[in-house]
Amino acid sequence: MQPLQLADRVFTSRLFTGTGKFGSVSVMTEALRASGTELVTVALKRVHADDPGDEMLAGLSGIPLLPNTSGVRNAREAVFAAQMAREALETHWIKLEIHPDPRYLLPDPIETLAAAEELARLGFVVLPYVHADPVLCKRLEEAGAAAVMPLAAPIGSNKGLKTFDFLEIIIAQSRVPVVVDAGLGAPSHAAAAMEMGADAVLVNTAIAVSEDPVRMAQAFRMAVEAGRMAWEARLAPVVSHAVASSPLTAFLED
Amino acid sequence: MQPLQLADRVFTSRLFTGTGKFGSVSVMTEALRASGTELVTVALKRVHADDPGDEMLAGLSGIPLLPNTSGVRNAREAVFAAQMAREALETHWIKLEIHPDPRYLLPDPIETLAAAEELARLGFVVLPYVHADPVLCKRLEEAGAAAVMPLAAPIGSNKGLKTFDFLEIIIAQSRVPVVVDAGLGAPSHAAAAMEMGADAVLVNTAIAVSEDPVRMAQAFRMAVEAGRMAWEARLAPVVSHAVASSPLTAFLED
Amino acid sequence: MQPLQLADRVFTSRLFTGTGKFGSVSVMTEALRASGTELVTVALKRVHADDPGDEMLAGLSGIPLLPNTSGVRNAREAVFAAQMAREALETHWIKLEIHPDPRYLLPDPIETLAAAEELARLGFVVLPYVHADPVLCKRLEEAGAAAVMPLAAPIGSNKGLKTFDFLEIIIAQSRVPVVVDAGLGAPSHAAAAMEMGADAVLVNTAIAVSEDPVRMAQAFRMAVEAGRMAWEARLAPVVSHAVASSPLTAFLED
Amino acid sequence: MQPLQLADRVFTSRLFTGTGKFGSVSVMTEALRASGTELVTVALKRVHADDPGDEMLAGLSGIPLLPNTSGVRNAREAVFAAQMAREALETHWIKLEIHPDPRYLLPDPIETLAAAEELARLGFVVLPYVHADPVLCKRLEEAGAAAVMPLAAPIGSNKGLKTFDFLEIIIAQSRVPVVVDAGLGAPSHAAAAMEMGADAVLVNTAIAVSEDPVRMAQAFRMAVEAGRMAWEARLAPVVSHAVASSPLTAFLED
Repeated sequence: MQPLQLADRVFTSRLFTGTGKFGSVSVMTEALRASGTELVTVALKRVHADDPGDEMLAGLSGIPLLPNTSGVRNAREAVFAAQMAREALETHWIKLEIHPDPRYLLPDPIETLAAAEELARLGFVVLPYVHADPVLCKRLEEAGAAAVMPLAAPIGSNKGLKTFDFLEIIIAQSRVPVVVDAGLGAPSHAAAAMEMGADAVLVNTAIAVSEDPVRMAQAFRMAVEAGRMAWEARLAPVVSHAVASSPLTAFLED
Repeated sequence: MQPLQLADRVFTSRLFTGTGKFGSVSVMTEALRASGTELVTVALKRVHADDPGDEMLAGLSGIPLLPNTSGVRNAREAVFAAQMAREALETHWIKLEIHPDPRYLLPDPIETLAAAEELARLGFVVLPYVHADPVLCKRLEEAGAAAVMPLAAPIGSNKGLKTFDFLEIIIAQSRVPVVVDAGLGAPSHAAAAMEMGADAVLVNTAIAVSEDPVRMAQAFRMAVEAGRMAWEARLAPVVSHAVASSPLTAFLED
Repeated sequence: MQPLQLADRVFTSRLFTGTGKFGSVSVMTEALRASGTELVTVALKRVHADDPGDEMLAGLSGIPLLPNTSGVRNAREAVFAAQMAREALETHWIKLEIHPDPRYLLPDPIETLAAAEELARLGFVVLPYVHADPVLCKRLEEAGAAAVMPLAAPIGSNKGLKTFDFLEIIIAQSRVPVVVDAGLGAPSHAAAAMEMGADAVLVNTAIAVSEDPVRMAQAFRMAVEAGRMAWEARLAPVVSHAVASSPLTAFLED
Repeated sequence: MQPLQLADRVFTSRLFTGTGKFGSVSVMTEALRASGTELVTVALKRVHADDPGDEMLAGLSGIPLLPNTSGVRNAREAVFAAQMAREALETHWIKLEIHPDPRYLLPDPIETLAAAEELARLGFVVLPYVHADPVLCKRLEEAGAAAVMPLAAPIGSNKGLKTFDFLEIIIAQSRVPVVVDAGLGAPSHAAAAMEMGADAVLVNTAIAVSEDPVRMAQAFRMAVEAGRMAWEARLAPVVSHAVASSPLTAFLED
């Protein structure tokens, strides 16, 4: 599997994860380690980096953190949160999330673009969570986003690749990595996102609320690798029915 | 991953494969080894078991073969072919395929049931390839089939789980293993079949006609394991939108 | 809209209906009249044709009835039921339904084919309800069925065209009318079945259990006509994205 | 069917149409009349309202026109185009379309919101064409849009309701009419949009490029009415399999 270059880092794992909804810190830690993830998003508001006993951060030691701006309502708050995160966690990477509505947690395109422009100008590596809107993704790229993170389905819904037709366009057009975020509820969904050419996926809920998060994390890890390998090997085309066998199958045939 | 018991054998791999449509015997051999498969179906008519130089059989040495009756047009011919296969390959396992129409290669339910009854009576381990017809699958089980092999989509189409709603019923009702066969065109399709509780899958075309069959075989291998593990760990439920965070997420939240 | 020829009758309406699950006989009667249907299936066991006060039959007076064999468990019982229906209702048309399992009401392919052969020999106009199995449909046609009635989804599920890929093959191959039966839960489902070239649809549950069966019956009536007209006018092809405008649109453009 | 109130007008027809891609003006005129439409969008740049011989406008006489801003690249140009349209066509209704990319014609969320704010302030009845982005739709409503026009699929693709999961949220949240626009390729797609509670649909390509635009227009007309009636009558719920019959069906059963 080819490594992923994102901004100035190289990733062996194409499975990004989060820290929400786990039943305990120890389960979370074990699951994230099992996932092989090399980037874990964490809500700034929940981090107490100056607290040496912060159990969560201790458990994740060694795995790079990606602070996110979850909870902010507009661009101004997002920029402020990113600056706080930079200080607290000593990283200029930021997952930009602006979803004012508490019910669906869907991202606001206007505020997100405004914040991305400002944060890029301030030297951040900006990874914006957005609707699967090809025009918005292109504008975010032009504004200096290091990647785009379009959603597959409403966050937490586990519905899978509901935005397939738009992700296809986003992937075809993008010159920055495309990380499919939100709504991937099963390893098969993550594999399918990779098979269509996504550069990475972010999975949180589907791992955290499984009956066995550690095993589910392993399953997602393998599925992401499988999907990426399939993309590299090129999928067989979808056809309306079986085609006649090739000459070789005169003696090799199933 | 739990092993699979099918008739009197135990399988570590839940990925069954075939030998059709590969570009060469050496690619086929390498791909099937990479797939980790422990059961490879092969058309009887193509096997020359008495020929010590049979290149294909030599390459597969050590991987159990599952002769199939591909090419027969009715139950009578199928029973005859199975008996020939038993002698030639010294196995009483038989994949029962009766698809009179050369265009779609779809199985004939009537002839398949008749042949299954007869072959079970003759002591064969019968694995019938059938439409995803829950009543037919139940009747085949009652007739003594060791497993049922319902199709996911027209064979060779690579369309994926088009019979999802019927496979669900078949899996819920079956007391013999359910092996999803035909139409799985991507690792994500195979993972999805396993996630819904299939006991195994059979993949041939999607591996054989990929640009890189060896890598694709590995991808399917991982995807099948991922799907099985996800089934064992239980998928998170599909919901219409994000649910409120659990109490714990007062401090752990993505 | 072109009329439908089925056996020796011509139908203006391509919406066949049933009598199950309505809240009252009067609602049923009004709904079936609103549907414009010219063929209503009715379970023989529920008909008391010799009872001059049979409210249901009275309400339907003028609409041709299609007795069905619902409740029988095998071919022998089906043939007997068909003969009783012929006498009681003075019609040699029969909807052949053999679904031994009371949970899913899915049809048995083996018994259905056996009964169809016998009933055709006995001079019946046989309309068998079957799984969307292209090989079985072809065999039923060869056995003398006047039409085939493949299911769209499990009966009563309202899931819509879940068997699309197989209905496509059935429609392409069939030389008798194809009536899509079971599982159509919305007018859009019925329209889609007609758009793909089905000759007619049968709808019962979706009308009967609606909050307003009369209005829903009208909606299905219009949707079936719309779908048929669209098929006659040919749908625009599905493309991956907008194509360049034609020369004419130099001055006509949206 | 209930009439639709949109801004200060009442519509009997819930099928909005366009003028692009027709083979001739006469076919367009006949098709639009057959569709029963009461609102036809037309590109300002193509209209020569001061030309008494403008064949297109003459043909549509009596059908209200909805000028659109197709061809503009940003908010500033859109506002200018809307003002020109107001003068030329003597209507303050405007379909706001800003899609800078000529390949996919997908709308720009940022420019669209900016233009909608300005146009609403200038007294226009603004109907913006947008991605199926629930947050954006809410912001457009707050900015004074008279309706929102989210897309079903890439324009001209005929793919149908690819944004179903997001349209569901938009419809649930919106306090202005929701008109599903772009991508509806078949009457069944239009019916499905109405069944889920859309207030209206806009269809152009699917009618214009059909082999028989007049008949296709009639088909869409009926399908839209059918879908609306089904929504008013409430669809039967989707269930996993047939439910037991109600008591009444002791004597009424299909």
